[in-house]
Amino acid sequence: MAYKIGNTIFLGKRIEIISSAGIVGKKEGDGPFGSHFDEINDDAYLGKNTYEEAESFLQTKAVNKALEKINLTPEDIDVISCGDLLNQCIGSSFGIKEFNIPAIGVYGACSTMALALITSALFIESGAAKKAISVTSSHFCAAERQYRFPLPYGSIRPLTSQWTVTGAGAAVLSENNGDNPYIKSATVGIITDMGIKDQNNMGAAMAPAAAETIYRFFKDTGTSPADYDKIYTGDLGFTGSELLLELLEEKGIDIKEKHADCGKMIYDKERQDVHSGGSGCGCSASMFCSYIMKMMKEDKLKNILFCPTGALLSPTSVLQKREIPGIAHLINIVK
Amino acid sequence: MAYKIGNTIFLGKRIEIISSAGIVGKKEGDGPFGSHFDEINDDAYLGKNTYEEAESFLQTKAVNKALEKINLTPEDIDVISCGDLLNQCIGSSFGIKEFNIPAIGVYGACSTMALALITSALFIESGAAKKAISVTSSHFCAAERQYRFPLPYGSIRPLTSQWTVTGAGAAVLSENNGDNPYIKSATVGIITDMGIKDQNNMGAAMAPAAAETIYRFFKDTGTSPADYDKIYTGDLGFTGSELLLELLEEKGIDIKEKHADCGKMIYDKERQDVHSGGSGCGCSASMFCSYIMKMMKEDKLKNILFCPTGALLSPTSVLQKREIPGIAHLINIVK
Repeated sequence: MAYKIGNTIFLGKRIEIISSAGIVGKKEGDGPFGSHFDEINDDAYLGKNTYEEAESFLQTKAVNKALEKINLTPEDIDVISCGDLLNQCIGSSFGIKEFNIPAIGVYGACSTMALALITSALFIESGAAKKAISVTSSHFCAAERQYRFPLPYGSIRPLTSQWTVTGAGAAVLSENNGDNPYIKSATVGIITDMGIKDQNNMGAAMAPAAAETIYRFFKDTGTSPADYDKIYTGDLGFTGSELLLELLEEKGIDIKEKHADCGKMIYDKERQDVHSGGSGCGCSASMFCSYIMKMMKEDKLKNILFCPTGALLSPTSVLQKREIPGIAHLINIVK
Repeated sequence: MAYKIGNTIFLGKRIEIISSAGIVGKKEGDGPFGSHFDEINDDAYLGKNTYEEAESFLQTKAVNKALEKINLTPEDIDVISCGDLLNQCIGSSFGIKEFNIPAIGVYGACSTMALALITSALFIESGAAKKAISVTSSHFCAAERQYRFPLPYGSIRPLTSQWTVTGAGAAVLSENNGDNPYIKSATVGIITDMGIKDQNNMGAAMAPAAAETIYRFFKDTGTSPADYDKIYTGDLGFTGSELLLELLEEKGIDIKEKHADCGKMIYDKERQDVHSGGSGCGCSASMFCSYIMKMMKEDKLKNILFCPTGALLSPTSVLQKREIPGIAHLINIVK
């Protein structure tokens, strides 16, 4: 049985991540972690007719790859938690519909992978599922035309802007007594709103949410940054990461030595100038389901925090000059 | 501890719906169930600047009302599951942000209220929460301009089209030994795709999903329609409801005597001609959280199935001439 202290849930079962896969596009494959991804797709369309279909196909591929690695099929999975950034979550609906797995759609903007993992974990913890899969995605071309401008406009991006990752990550969860990394606890985020209105500076909109969730986690668990090998945020990028460190320092917490951000990691800052780093549901998902899980399986990391962040905006809310609330969900994974 | 047979989850705890509230707009208030809603708002803007802000305010009001009825405050709630139809779920993000409750965003189109109830129930079942709240909404004016045409165009709607309900419903769940209606079991839906492409006939797109979920529920539980007082679908409307009955009849299941559809109920067919009925996340949510829960509290209904359906389309997927997959989640509530 799980229990809760403050905002943090402590799981009773040993819910392991028994397999995972990260599928990405060409630019991500060319980045510093290219060799860790399970598949790199040079064609932005992935052989489909539209970028949206391509994004769905990234989810299909990630799920198939994660299952294939442990010789499972969709019939072995009790529930799938899925999400993405496209309007009405069509990346997920079309990406997973062929699997015939009972489906829970989740939405937390770029924090969605953590939400999908928490949802899957609680299905297993409650007894409602034995095996669950979580998958999220994003696609640069689909996101640009939905959130900003059609690509052919060739618009100039400000230096605080981030580059939406073309990628998906899928993770299979199961109650187990094996030797896989498992989810020990999780902090479900609250919505934080600091009044930021610049959609080209989403790192700044999300950093307060990350600071809030990380602060609450340390308080609820009575632990400190020194207790963890690494603290990964999702896609704060260069601007947001700096702000996170400052905000936590104000609360007396120094995570400098332990902090890494998937958005800062996924592209080479010098060689692949994307300004403030990567972003999107697929950013932290593809990094988590490939490189980070690999490091844990190889015992190079044994106790980590994974805390992706989401900016809860829509093109409509931006046009209406509304503020951009943020949210961050955190998972502690140990081995 | 919960367990699962087929696609149906049987809860171990007695998870009660200890309070609920349905808040609606003027048209819904003028409908046959107007006297059952907790609040009717004559102003489509609810005093706000935009329809989107008005929709968010419906969620805020529904949560506040549901809590107020049992003298609880947001601090008493461990987790909120929320969702809506607006792009990037801004109805929820902006509607619940002031509550500071750990937030799980869920998306299942018009089936979202069932998803939010299932998510909340599993948080409680697992021990991760003691009290949870579920809330969803929709708003006619916000939905029309997002999905179809700006209202000032005055476009003609085909007879199969439905009218998005302006409304929200919130339900508070808690493990209890009281005398409230409780969730006995739930069937998480799979995505069903029959190749329907007409966005003005969403009832037809969703009916196969409802048939699939209801069929699976009866199979998994070994029960039949005769065992239930009422079988409510969400917003199939007149066209979709007829199709549902036909599809189930083909599978040897006759629910004619027990079936009711919130989309058919909420407006007066003759007096308030809305063509095929009501729709939207707020349709089944507002009906469930007011009239249906009231009937259960008054022992006029003692064993019901609540099965809202969702059409997993987006304006982009429609423009790209893609099919409209459907999903339906079912909850068995008894007293």
